[in-house]
Amino acid sequence: MRIGILGSGLMGGKLGTLFAKAGHEVVFSYARSRSKLEALAREAGPRARAGTPREAVQDADALLFSVHWNRVDDVLRQAGDLSRKVVVTCSLPMDDDDTSLIVGHTASGAEVLARKAAGARVVSAFGTVPSEVLTSVFEAREGEARPSLVYCGDDDDAKDVAAQLIRDVGFDPVDAGPLQVARYLEPFTLLIAKLAYEGHDGPTLAYRFEHFEQRA
Amino acid sequence: MRIGILGSGLMGGKLGTLFAKAGHEVVFSYARSRSKLEALAREAGPRARAGTPREAVQDADALLFSVHWNRVDDVLRQAGDLSRKVVVTCSLPMDDDDTSLIVGHTASGAEVLARKAAGARVVSAFGTVPSEVLTSVFEAREGEARPSLVYCGDDDDAKDVAAQLIRDVGFDPVDAGPLQVARYLEPFTLLIAKLAYEGHDGPTLAYRFEHFEQRA
Repeated sequence: MRIGILGSGLMGGKLGTLFAKAGHEVVFSYARSRSKLEALAREAGPRARAGTPREAVQDADALLFSVHWNRVDDVLRQAGDLSRKVVVTCSLPMDDDDTSLIVGHTASGAEVLARKAAGARVVSAFGTVPSEVLTSVFEAREGEARPSLVYCGDDDDAKDVAAQLIRDVGFDPVDAGPLQVARYLEPFTLLIAKLAYEGHDGPTLAYRFEHFEQRA
Repeated sequence: MRIGILGSGLMGGKLGTLFAKAGHEVVFSYARSRSKLEALAREAGPRARAGTPREAVQDADALLFSVHWNRVDDVLRQAGDLSRKVVVTCSLPMDDDDTSLIVGHTASGAEVLARKAAGARVVSAFGTVPSEVLTSVFEAREGEARPSLVYCGDDDDAKDVAAQLIRDVGFDPVDAGPLQVARYLEPFTLLIAKLAYEGHDGPTLAYRFEHFEQRA
């Protein structure tokens, strides 16, 4: 697939690199500087390049939406028309201090994004693990049990694309239902962040859902 | 420990039974009928008995708060003074239709409960797994890796009590921080519920947090 990265920060930079290593063509866009984008592309190898948001969108099979919430309108303006595009978002609706969600329970950042990017097929994914764990999971995937990664969305084809990308970076995709479930998925992300950044064991944290047989 | 169950429904009934099997004295209270409480106590064995909420509170080392949210005021009124009591809550602030959280992001059910039960040392726990998985995990605990169970609260001693109870029923307690984190933990519960009750694999679902070593 051809994947455009809208927001090449911690998450976008790392995921784009892993997507390229997994065999996809990647266009990094929207970082502090063009040179940051070019450095990312160099490190990610021959399948990656730097571009503008509009170039990232052009001919993309999927977009990774990974900007800070206060950049949503700006990156959407730069990206242009997203109609029918598969948009995989891990952008949380945090306030400028990154202290609390500014959209919630009766809404979610993913739903707001879907309304703003009218016509785009938005899937919420990748937000629920810290960027620090991505490379370890990607490299650990041979043989070892995969951690889970939940995603949700309203378009089945777009969800299939997201599930494939989740698999490509070494996680086991777990379908949590329609996009509205992002109302729960986004706070779950903050729970993971609490454990990863304020817990004892550090940020290389993932999670796995497991089924236990009923014996009683 | 002596543990009072305030709300002997699906969660309270099962957890109380497991607490009794784990060696604690348990008083079941607040179910639809006295005979339901007595049946629970009979099944749970010689360490369990039926009682009123006030009897459940009396001399209790810990209380499990497990009523539907629309019963909070009533059970608190019946329970009497909870000052200094350790209150482990798995009661979600759901509306009467059980469709959505009525407290959130800038508040949580656990925090509201802590204000209403003034002086009580509230810990949020046990809400994040379906009642259907409890017995399986309890019985599977010898040898097998334990699933995680997150809890949060503001009183360290109360949290130690909650962690012990979590261990007693076969889970690995994961400290998520102060009671305010219930704002994330409660929506996480709804995510688990989505996966458990609307997913493919059924309700015997648990989760485990895992650390992956950074290799890159």
